[in-house]
Amino acid sequence: MKTPILTPLAQSLPSTVPFVGPEAMTRARNRPFAARMGANENLFGPSARAVAAMRQAADEVWMYGDPECFGLKAAIAAHHGVTPAHVVVGEGIDGLLGLLVRLMVGAGDRVVTSAGAYPTFNFHVTGFGGEIIRVPYKGDHEDPDALLAAARANGAKLIYLANPDNPMGSHHPSATITAMINALPDGCLLALDEAYVELAPAGTEAVVAADDPRVIRFRTFSKAHGMAGLRLGYALAAPELALAFDKVRNHFGVGRIAQAGGIAALGDGAHLQAVRLWAVAGRARLGQIAVANGLRPLPSATNFVTIDCGKDGTYARAVMQALIARDIFVRMPAVAPLDRCIRVSLGDEAAFAAFAQALPLALADVARA
Amino acid sequence: MKTPILTPLAQSLPSTVPFVGPEAMTRARNRPFAARMGANENLFGPSARAVAAMRQAADEVWMYGDPECFGLKAAIAAHHGVTPAHVVVGEGIDGLLGLLVRLMVGAGDRVVTSAGAYPTFNFHVTGFGGEIIRVPYKGDHEDPDALLAAARANGAKLIYLANPDNPMGSHHPSATITAMINALPDGCLLALDEAYVELAPAGTEAVVAADDPRVIRFRTFSKAHGMAGLRLGYALAAPELALAFDKVRNHFGVGRIAQAGGIAALGDGAHLQAVRLWAVAGRARLGQIAVANGLRPLPSATNFVTIDCGKDGTYARAVMQALIARDIFVRMPAVAPLDRCIRVSLGDEAAFAAFAQALPLALADVARA
Repeated sequence: MKTPILTPLAQSLPSTVPFVGPEAMTRARNRPFAARMGANENLFGPSARAVAAMRQAADEVWMYGDPECFGLKAAIAAHHGVTPAHVVVGEGIDGLLGLLVRLMVGAGDRVVTSAGAYPTFNFHVTGFGGEIIRVPYKGDHEDPDALLAAARANGAKLIYLANPDNPMGSHHPSATITAMINALPDGCLLALDEAYVELAPAGTEAVVAADDPRVIRFRTFSKAHGMAGLRLGYALAAPELALAFDKVRNHFGVGRIAQAGGIAALGDGAHLQAVRLWAVAGRARLGQIAVANGLRPLPSATNFVTIDCGKDGTYARAVMQALIARDIFVRMPAVAPLDRCIRVSLGDEAAFAAFAQALPLALADVARA
Repeated sequence: MKTPILTPLAQSLPSTVPFVGPEAMTRARNRPFAARMGANENLFGPSARAVAAMRQAADEVWMYGDPECFGLKAAIAAHHGVTPAHVVVGEGIDGLLGLLVRLMVGAGDRVVTSAGAYPTFNFHVTGFGGEIIRVPYKGDHEDPDALLAAARANGAKLIYLANPDNPMGSHHPSATITAMINALPDGCLLALDEAYVELAPAGTEAVVAADDPRVIRFRTFSKAHGMAGLRLGYALAAPELALAFDKVRNHFGVGRIAQAGGIAALGDGAHLQAVRLWAVAGRARLGQIAVANGLRPLPSATNFVTIDCGKDGTYARAVMQALIARDIFVRMPAVAPLDRCIRVSLGDEAAFAAFAQALPLALADVARA
């Protein structure tokens, strides 16, 4: 009996879970974390209005969600001053990046990103047979000039840039992004991941004409809106590109609870403002904890602080592992020279206190080892 | 300026929403429906325990869901007497079918289905460049022999079969499916969609060895479990095939609320039994309404009844449209000869009453036209 076989491309791919979740780590450790500061979740939490809307929607969950996401798209469009035809809704930025890659990237097509930038984007590119070109960060920032040069040299179909950046927390001002868009090679699309932009200083958000076909922006309800467990994101693009997602998307993939939560969250500007203030205070607090322990916090435009441990990747990994052993869930960049750092998400009071207590002990653990 | 362009395959695909949702119809009509009986939703509703679990999860939605879906996979595995390695969790059967096609079907690969069967499966096959071979239904049943013959003749990678069937509501006994699996051509995988099987007579559910590499079964929380708006489904397959989904899935695509709702629903066997009784009674009730109006209800193993209107597709379409005009949302099969029917989902008391009142008036509308 011959077993059914996968496509050659699928056969070539590894079976992987790009991130080991804190649940899997807890199961392996057989002990809960005292502070969940590794996944850049929003410990301040979502809008109470959004929670109420999701709870209400749970009572109506026997109904499919609207496959056109009419109300949510209208709310997003109003929020951004565009039309619903400029909006694509999907199962998180992860899901939308996958659809974009599927639409744009075939076997051998080249795509440019930064070495150490968001791995799930690379997962999608590889998954559709594309070739990834990586350029280094420059001063802990993704480097628009290097990205552009690599795109030109390789005839790239796509450039991925996150602004603000994950995992470094750095950001470029809007003007830098505008200049980058204007310098894009013909036929190259900028995939601009703005997952954290609501938490960045004013003037970070890209100013893009709604109909500009050279860029697609990605937003999420997982970060500033505090609903990572909902799986809801959206993209803003020229209508022709936005419409193309209807060629391939899972039309009922964003369900009724997600649509209700998203609409309510967008309507609660006061909560978003409170989250912004929490992020400013939390970044300062994490920075102080780092400095008090002789480490260097990098400037952050996000809900996490990347902390330079001052040595190499081996050392930072030991610090991370010592923190995990002390029940503090944190992560770190995967690629040198970024991997001299650990990445710590902002906490609530309990998490900040636990981190402040554990960090000096973890550093001492590493010094002793 | 040259605009970024899609892959040749993506360019060849239409932008489409496979189903026009009742929300879109309501917007176009500018009037709500009195009865929502078109989308095979479960008007009996979900388990109260599942609703409570989803409401609880809404309070914790700042956390990502476990990307490994450990608890949910364990619950599914226990429910079916398999191991978690046999389980794939995804964003509804729709999403899982898309991933399966992506794993198995490349450009020009052939896939066999029935003319008039689930269109979203065809959407995925076309979307990955596959070629669809359609065979006719036989006596309002999908025809295993014809599917097998077409697979043999065309060297098909996949056969799609729904048991029970949508849109006809018919079913095959388990033994027929077993015989079909044993007759599959070498290298051909059976994609067995069991979305409605919990509502079918005993002996319908396929009896498949957990490690059989020739078949993958799909289940959903949208039908018997009454949580269509949650977007949660799963597949049961041999571990090697199940693991392959980790090559391509959206790892965080099933969020925290969905996982919590699924686990709670599986734990409420009493509710599932109540839904089964509701389905038996509802099928009888819809059948009586059809007969009282001179129409012929087809036997159903699902939560809908397909009603033969006794003439051709034009007539059935007119009946459907007359019902919609009278605020009863129903659908109909798209392909002859199935399209002599309308498809009516089971209702709650109000929906059944509204349908009983509207049907004779709708038939009179059509007779007058």
